[in-house]
Amino acid sequence: MTTALIVLAAGMGTRMNSDLPKVLHSVAGAPLLIHAMKSGAGLDPAHTIIVAGHGAEAVGKTARSWDETARIVLQEEQKGTAHAVDMARDALADFDGDVIVLYGDTPFIRPETLEAMQEARAQHDIVVLGFDAADPGRYGRLVMDGDRLERIVEYKDASDKERAITLCNSGVIAADCKALFDLVSEIGNDNASGEYYLTDIVALARARGLGATVVTCAESETMGINSRAELARAEAAFQARARDEALENGVTLTAPETVFFAHDTVIGRDSIVEPHVFFGPGVTVESGATIRAFSHLEGCHVSRGAVVGPYARLRPGAELAEDVRVGNFVEVKNAILDEGAKANHLSYIGDAHVGAGSNIGAGTITCNYDGVMKHRTEIGAGAFIGSNTMLVAPVKVGAGAMTASGSVITRDVEDEALALARAEQTNKPGMARKLFEILKAKKAKRDKGEA
Amino acid sequence: MTTALIVLAAGMGTRMNSDLPKVLHSVAGAPLLIHAMKSGAGLDPAHTIIVAGHGAEAVGKTARSWDETARIVLQEEQKGTAHAVDMARDALADFDGDVIVLYGDTPFIRPETLEAMQEARAQHDIVVLGFDAADPGRYGRLVMDGDRLERIVEYKDASDKERAITLCNSGVIAADCKALFDLVSEIGNDNASGEYYLTDIVALARARGLGATVVTCAESETMGINSRAELARAEAAFQARARDEALENGVTLTAPETVFFAHDTVIGRDSIVEPHVFFGPGVTVESGATIRAFSHLEGCHVSRGAVVGPYARLRPGAELAEDVRVGNFVEVKNAILDEGAKANHLSYIGDAHVGAGSNIGAGTITCNYDGVMKHRTEIGAGAFIGSNTMLVAPVKVGAGAMTASGSVITRDVEDEALALARAEQTNKPGMARKLFEILKAKKAKRDKGEA
Amino acid sequence: MTTALIVLAAGMGTRMNSDLPKVLHSVAGAPLLIHAMKSGAGLDPAHTIIVAGHGAEAVGKTARSWDETARIVLQEEQKGTAHAVDMARDALADFDGDVIVLYGDTPFIRPETLEAMQEARAQHDIVVLGFDAADPGRYGRLVMDGDRLERIVEYKDASDKERAITLCNSGVIAADCKALFDLVSEIGNDNASGEYYLTDIVALARARGLGATVVTCAESETMGINSRAELARAEAAFQARARDEALENGVTLTAPETVFFAHDTVIGRDSIVEPHVFFGPGVTVESGATIRAFSHLEGCHVSRGAVVGPYARLRPGAELAEDVRVGNFVEVKNAILDEGAKANHLSYIGDAHVGAGSNIGAGTITCNYDGVMKHRTEIGAGAFIGSNTMLVAPVKVGAGAMTASGSVITRDVEDEALALARAEQTNKPGMARKLFEILKAKKAKRDKGEA
Repeated sequence: MTTALIVLAAGMGTRMNSDLPKVLHSVAGAPLLIHAMKSGAGLDPAHTIIVAGHGAEAVGKTARSWDETARIVLQEEQKGTAHAVDMARDALADFDGDVIVLYGDTPFIRPETLEAMQEARAQHDIVVLGFDAADPGRYGRLVMDGDRLERIVEYKDASDKERAITLCNSGVIAADCKALFDLVSEIGNDNASGEYYLTDIVALARARGLGATVVTCAESETMGINSRAELARAEAAFQARARDEALENGVTLTAPETVFFAHDTVIGRDSIVEPHVFFGPGVTVESGATIRAFSHLEGCHVSRGAVVGPYARLRPGAELAEDVRVGNFVEVKNAILDEGAKANHLSYIGDAHVGAGSNIGAGTITCNYDGVMKHRTEIGAGAFIGSNTMLVAPVKVGAGAMTASGSVITRDVEDEALALARAEQTNKPGMARKLFEILKAKKAKRDKGEA
Repeated sequence: MTTALIVLAAGMGTRMNSDLPKVLHSVAGAPLLIHAMKSGAGLDPAHTIIVAGHGAEAVGKTARSWDETARIVLQEEQKGTAHAVDMARDALADFDGDVIVLYGDTPFIRPETLEAMQEARAQHDIVVLGFDAADPGRYGRLVMDGDRLERIVEYKDASDKERAITLCNSGVIAADCKALFDLVSEIGNDNASGEYYLTDIVALARARGLGATVVTCAESETMGINSRAELARAEAAFQARARDEALENGVTLTAPETVFFAHDTVIGRDSIVEPHVFFGPGVTVESGATIRAFSHLEGCHVSRGAVVGPYARLRPGAELAEDVRVGNFVEVKNAILDEGAKANHLSYIGDAHVGAGSNIGAGTITCNYDGVMKHRTEIGAGAFIGSNTMLVAPVKVGAGAMTASGSVITRDVEDEALALARAEQTNKPGMARKLFEILKAKKAKRDKGEA
Repeated sequence: MTTALIVLAAGMGTRMNSDLPKVLHSVAGAPLLIHAMKSGAGLDPAHTIIVAGHGAEAVGKTARSWDETARIVLQEEQKGTAHAVDMARDALADFDGDVIVLYGDTPFIRPETLEAMQEARAQHDIVVLGFDAADPGRYGRLVMDGDRLERIVEYKDASDKERAITLCNSGVIAADCKALFDLVSEIGNDNASGEYYLTDIVALARARGLGATVVTCAESETMGINSRAELARAEAAFQARARDEALENGVTLTAPETVFFAHDTVIGRDSIVEPHVFFGPGVTVESGATIRAFSHLEGCHVSRGAVVGPYARLRPGAELAEDVRVGNFVEVKNAILDEGAKANHLSYIGDAHVGAGSNIGAGTITCNYDGVMKHRTEIGAGAFIGSNTMLVAPVKVGAGAMTASGSVITRDVEDEALALARAEQTNKPGMARKLFEILKAKKAKRDKGEA
């Protein structure tokens, strides 16, 4: 059965106290909306409809950055979840298949959970995602008769007996597309807040003689986000799971609680991650690499045997081959470092290719920006870049070549050549003493002037 | 009613195991004593008397650094809280008004709480600050009769019935100045430790027919500090509150537990603070700024749209205008960066003014210290400072000017001029290979010699 | 009584999901095996026998790195703890004294605990180390009759009454060497897993009329490690204890939970450690030093009054005398900094001696590596090293000497001399404007070409 997703993403999120639409706040380096879309992507949906409202333009842009086929429909006024779903009616007018309704502020539903809902649709007209709540509080309750869902009762309308039910409604729902929109048409807003609630669909379906059931998931999957405190808790929940998984997968985390992963971080077995490390999106670390304390990685690849940090920053496009060493206060951006290359101290390697076994001296900078454009630096295998070499790109240093410490290299250096750009050293005997005396006299005068 | 503060700050704090007087240990970047003085400052006190003893000189210096009108009185021997208060008698001899007695090791009393005590004084001769203890343990109990405080009973003297009371004594007390010192004169030291206890004042007042009452506050406000473990717990309590408040105020904290605020940190709505960030005293961050991971800020201002870090250090006097960018391994001290200026990598900007839209290349250093004095660097708007430029202050680089990478700039550069200070590059073919051969031969010889 | 240690270290540690033998995984900067050996070292053992199996070569190398007299015996197949002990039989054939059997994956047994076992041996043939378990779960139970150990019952064989016992078996055992090996010979493998269990020794001893007893320790001492999650918990337990001890010893830790100690870190009273600090092995910090946030120290010494960081990295061999200052983005390796020397910004000081009161300017680099060998830099007292000075080692800068900012120093500088190696500055009026225009035109052309 082909499936279409409707992701409700129109809410303002007043409690976030933010100009940014709620679904664009991030967990684990990705907006909440993208998490929801990723959950649904496991179903290989034929259509993905994002119902946007507040900040619709930004929401749409984000959605399409992840899935350029996503369609954005506008819900100008927020009149409830059923009303929001109704906005997708035209977009799915010609679609023959199932629809699953997701929420842009509910990032943790697992793809497996949605697959289970999809499977349950084979035998039931409507499938609601439920969870067994540790503290059901004011959640809507799912009243079951065997495996059939009798109805969804809002807390305020529930009898004491119904309130004792711990099976609660997540709001996620799956149904045949045409049936869904037929039922949605019938939903009214005769309630205290005057909104159209998608949950009413179950009672309407039952009245028509359609069958409904519930698929359950862990409560943690249904965590919705309404404030920054909840956002921080969601981040913490994500990180706790990611750390446990890393440990399980054979990664050593000395102090898991100080390491932050992104939604897509991949770290190989027998890698070591020291305390205080931050992984932004797009990082893969192969088996047997070491990420030392205080390192910051984004959009980069670290190969087996490489050692990164402490205090290394790998930015997008940094690719470290096997046994590469990137040390303290070194920034690498959009640069490939071939096998065994070393940049151990205080350097900036940007827009560059560094050959195998090269040694980049402390203080080396690839001057990749001329104030207008960016240019590339090429360093050959086995080169020795002396400390504090400025490589004014575009420039090439050949294989086995050497640059003298403190040189500004503006022209290419041939293989095995030595490049120098250095003034002669002059020692002036006694001059330091004289200078100190002059400076101290000046200071005394200045201090006197100020007094 | 005018109010005077007496802050008891004479104790040694034996359990701190420190040479530093207890009240000078810090929470959230400020000494405990300053926290207590700040609590009291909300009352706009006519006099602030610090009763100092151990380390009195340092205590006095710290007190006056916050409030230069604070008067320090000496308690040479520590003979109890009433004795300590008595030391302030002469200093307040001519004062006609109320006195509130605070403790230098109790940093978290809210100004609102002291205001409530001040108000309660309108109807009661003595006002004691109490709290409802979760675990009353060995605290003194407050025995009430309606809203009247009957007496304060020390735990060891309390009956079972009195021990069941959970309303406990914080020690903070408000009274008319003359009444206070009259009563203090009557307090004796006929007890196990031979000390004069301020709590005895209530019984003496009642005996005279004076009325006493209790104002209550949260137990967390009355947290006193006696060991470094308690100091660390107080810090943690402060941080937990500060993080919750930041979230509430619309700040995004990815990992609140890794961010440390100072007592006076101000962060605007819709700012983002990544994990592992430290705020020292005196920082304001406007709305919509981003502080990236591993940044360290003290005494600085960050404007809307500015992005700081990762690994940026802003020191006192750093002022970043809108959309400024300070990147990794960059230190800024006593320097103004105008709108849109960028210093992205490995730089030191000290005692400087950087014009709008300037680009400071990687490895740039303002050489502000000549070994004796500090000097200023001025960089005009739209300037391009090439990588690894040394700006030997005092020096000016004009608007729209450019410095060549690797230049040492000792003389001013006019607007739109290019400054160069660079040796010619020479390439010596084959010389790198020869040098490597010579070095390897030397090493082989040395290794042989060592073997 | 002389004692020999047998440390069982042959297990694969399947649940670690690692190519590294389990006992070589680290807690607090030292392999588990070394922790166990250090526990036993307090007894000044006559022999230390490591029973290795998986990764025996690496295990042996690690063991001998800590104690070069350690003997490694091989257990080729892992057939149980008694079988493992039996592997040490030949190595101890001539030994007359006591044996204590320890486990390489149990790092926290205190030397005092082993001493207590050694003392108990005076009156009992066999001494077993037990602990009172908070949750005895499936641990073996120690059935006592007064102070005599009746037998060790495995959980699965225990009666309900025996399961109610909370005194549990740690596996650590002390006995006379000859008696131990005699008894071990008798242990059979007639059990479900077909393994030889050392715990059977107690029943066999009792059958022979030998007496056994139990010495108890805290449950935390017996924590064994079988997975990376348990390793992370062991690390957390170590750190919690180390932080508490530091606070107790008069160290200020602003945020203890963000500071990581090594097994051998020593920090003096009235030192301050700010948040986010990492101590690797071999660090001593004297009283009254300050380690600021985001610092990383290994194998170094910091003297009284010194201030390190933020973002300072001290590597092995860094020795900071009193009042030295090492500031942000500074790396010090194998270098002595004499009293009052300062290296405040963005520098690399490696293989060097820096004289008292010297000032190392921002961006200074000791160019200690020529691509083949390392060389030393000597800086005299009171020297002033200008910003961005390259010190091409081997090189000496004399006392009171000065180097000009941006100089590459390749020859020695005499005392009080000024060394310069600097190109003349040339300003080219209007040239920056022209260059920007040319670059923008180029870019426009390129952009057009790409379009």
